[in-house]
Amino acid sequence: MAKTQIGVIGLAVMGKNLALNIESRGYSVSVFNRSSEKTDALMSEAPGKQLTPTYTIEEFVQSLETPRKILIMVQAGKATDATIESLLPHLDQGDIIIDGGNAYFPDTVRRSTYLEEKGFRFIGSGVSGGEEGALIGPAIMPGGQESAYKLVEPILTAISAKVGDEPCCTYIGPDGAGHYVKMVHNGIEYGDMQLICEAYHLLKTVVGVDEKELHSIFTEWNKGELDSYLIEITADIFSKYDDETGKPMVDVILDEAGQKGTGKWTSQSALDLGVPLTMITESVFARFLSAMKAERVAASQVLSGPAHKPFTGDKAEFVEKVRKALFASKIISYAQGWAQMRAASEEYNWNLNYGNIAKIFRGGCIIRSQFLNNIKEAYDTNPELKNLLLDEYFKDIVEKYQDAWREVIGTAITYGVPVPSFSAALAYYDSYRTERLPANLLQAQRDYFGAHTFKRVDREGSFHYNWLTNE
Amino acid sequence: MAKTQIGVIGLAVMGKNLALNIESRGYSVSVFNRSSEKTDALMSEAPGKQLTPTYTIEEFVQSLETPRKILIMVQAGKATDATIESLLPHLDQGDIIIDGGNAYFPDTVRRSTYLEEKGFRFIGSGVSGGEEGALIGPAIMPGGQESAYKLVEPILTAISAKVGDEPCCTYIGPDGAGHYVKMVHNGIEYGDMQLICEAYHLLKTVVGVDEKELHSIFTEWNKGELDSYLIEITADIFSKYDDETGKPMVDVILDEAGQKGTGKWTSQSALDLGVPLTMITESVFARFLSAMKAERVAASQVLSGPAHKPFTGDKAEFVEKVRKALFASKIISYAQGWAQMRAASEEYNWNLNYGNIAKIFRGGCIIRSQFLNNIKEAYDTNPELKNLLLDEYFKDIVEKYQDAWREVIGTAITYGVPVPSFSAALAYYDSYRTERLPANLLQAQRDYFGAHTFKRVDREGSFHYNWLTNE
Repeated sequence: MAKTQIGVIGLAVMGKNLALNIESRGYSVSVFNRSSEKTDALMSEAPGKQLTPTYTIEEFVQSLETPRKILIMVQAGKATDATIESLLPHLDQGDIIIDGGNAYFPDTVRRSTYLEEKGFRFIGSGVSGGEEGALIGPAIMPGGQESAYKLVEPILTAISAKVGDEPCCTYIGPDGAGHYVKMVHNGIEYGDMQLICEAYHLLKTVVGVDEKELHSIFTEWNKGELDSYLIEITADIFSKYDDETGKPMVDVILDEAGQKGTGKWTSQSALDLGVPLTMITESVFARFLSAMKAERVAASQVLSGPAHKPFTGDKAEFVEKVRKALFASKIISYAQGWAQMRAASEEYNWNLNYGNIAKIFRGGCIIRSQFLNNIKEAYDTNPELKNLLLDEYFKDIVEKYQDAWREVIGTAITYGVPVPSFSAALAYYDSYRTERLPANLLQAQRDYFGAHTFKRVDREGSFHYNWLTNE
Repeated sequence: MAKTQIGVIGLAVMGKNLALNIESRGYSVSVFNRSSEKTDALMSEAPGKQLTPTYTIEEFVQSLETPRKILIMVQAGKATDATIESLLPHLDQGDIIIDGGNAYFPDTVRRSTYLEEKGFRFIGSGVSGGEEGALIGPAIMPGGQESAYKLVEPILTAISAKVGDEPCCTYIGPDGAGHYVKMVHNGIEYGDMQLICEAYHLLKTVVGVDEKELHSIFTEWNKGELDSYLIEITADIFSKYDDETGKPMVDVILDEAGQKGTGKWTSQSALDLGVPLTMITESVFARFLSAMKAERVAASQVLSGPAHKPFTGDKAEFVEKVRKALFASKIISYAQGWAQMRAASEEYNWNLNYGNIAKIFRGGCIIRSQFLNNIKEAYDTNPELKNLLLDEYFKDIVEKYQDAWREVIGTAITYGVPVPSFSAALAYYDSYRTERLPANLLQAQRDYFGAHTFKRVDREGSFHYNWLTNE
């Protein structure tokens, strides 16, 4: 029997759709799933394709041409380790395992070392775009040995999303780099979604727009700087009505946000790296707060807000100011996310290409947007750019929009509408551009109670002051 | 030779001072340090005391009465493990090891299980108060088997700080509970310090107070609700001048904050537990931002702030409003910290006593304050209190102060003074008291792009909407 060109293990929706995507580009694919039902289901769903069903790991491995290319699409964590272990006795040196799941990047680093020591090749790859993206073209972020990537590059670029004729797939860096970048992508996705929610909350509460106006507003916004998949689907969401009650869908959905943990990982990594990832972290915390529904309902009966003030300004002007506040905050979020990738690249020696990362995010994935072209251009202009805010394009927008941004947050505070991410973004801007922050006092306190010493403004060295004895 | 009652391993400043503190309460103490110089230095510094110097681990262990009580004061992490391993061959079943270092709580949980399985007893204890506290009376947070605690309780309560005649030491809970509570204490300390810095920054920038006025303002504040060690030393700091230049000390200290990582751990644990610890996390990030000094100096040349507006209000009124904003934000910080301890207690089955924790924080440690009495009282009134904000005392203050709080943050935003912690605290208050947050839209988005499903407001269950096909 002829050998196939690549194998896919794990035929849940993501694995199944990726297998179909690969096959649709002209590759022959072996498929395997721990329980045979999913394999059989796929075969009967998609007859007449170059798919080879297999029912044991050994049969699966034997069906592949060498060096074997095996894409694992199973649950992150223990299932991934178990799948890798089950493969190893059957593989040959130089065979390539690709983990396309949502692995936690330190696991990818560990697996990379482990498999390399055994003479196998390993690629940990972020795959973004959900079910539909997997089928028609996701954004792909592969990390691992570059030589191994070269062997699978034709397949991965073929199945990826395209912007124009540019594939949304590029080699990211060694070991955990691909999964790390996917993690930050997800963190940024948390941030974008929270910013949209805060804008929605403000528009609804302060100027009382209904879902029809919201649909128009977001449709308009999607034609300008904010042009992006998330703004587009938000506009669409406001046009949907519940079949049962006839109410707008947003009004029948409970305000309890779920999550799968990648936003949390992004924040925890930022804390480890010493990167101030304030906006995305507030977005993660905002999901936690939303999930405390029963507690909030009870608290809303007890704790009062500010006195109500009717809105007297111009509604259209306010809408435009909210748009500016949203866009300025979004710039901060991306500036923070890219600063985190830079810190990680330096910490883990990944040599990330920040412009290329923006480029592959432009298609296939949830945060795809026009805006990513500007990030790409910023790094084309200066590959060593320390912070997106220092790029002319972003600097100009934030400076131009800051009055509206400040006014909108001020209004939110006056009305008692929580805007944690808008506020965190602005506080970051004001901190980042401040030459002298009040941490001198904090260092004085630390030296006072713990003799932690401090630096001086006027010369090098480490100093301690005798706070208790000096007059 | 007579056996001693307790032994201390590790004679750096904390270990040395705790040994002297224990001895001063009438206990005989064996001391050991890996390098003998520190042992000899202690013996010659403190002659004529009931201290027994030892120079091998075996000699140290043999000098102790059984069941042995051994306090380890070495660096957290590997040094602690190495010290424990070096002790084990010489110990008898039932001997008690107390780790008084700043251990990361999962390490304490691990050590607890490990030593218990071997038949030893283990207490992981937070010790707060710095060098001076160690010598004259720290706050002590012991976790581990309660039966083991009972054997060392007389010593630990004797050496702890006292408020009136109440010791600042109480049994916290099993395994890692003591080190966990110490960790949260440190996170709260980060928050308190950041809030004071933001108040200082505002007062300096908006109304231009000098260090003499700042000394008076903080001295006044320390007489009221804010009465606390950190406000007290802040007042004192503003009265100190540099010997070399004659300038106020705060003006010669560089604005780069250091840290040792316990604040970071607190935030990372909150993220794991799903607790919105926004204010303390912003404080941790603020330290990161302060440490990016060179980058900030460069950015300050490039990025502009808002147009300058001279302050035209009443200075004394503004100072009082800043005080109110600081106090309201502080209440939020403690509400979040206590909510985190509750979540940890439920997750790890620690059965924490929230009122007692407030009680032992009242003396010896860095966050000691009058205010902790109110927290104690809140839990006396309702041991099952879900959030401090729901207690009558705290609710009343926050409601009464919210206008000032909102106005101060609004002013900060107008002036471009970053107040990340003030803002995060207010956003938490406004989120917590909001019955319906905009997370319904977020759930619609997640269901739209990832079929993550949502709950409905009107009935139980998990739902998916066909966003692309429905009209």
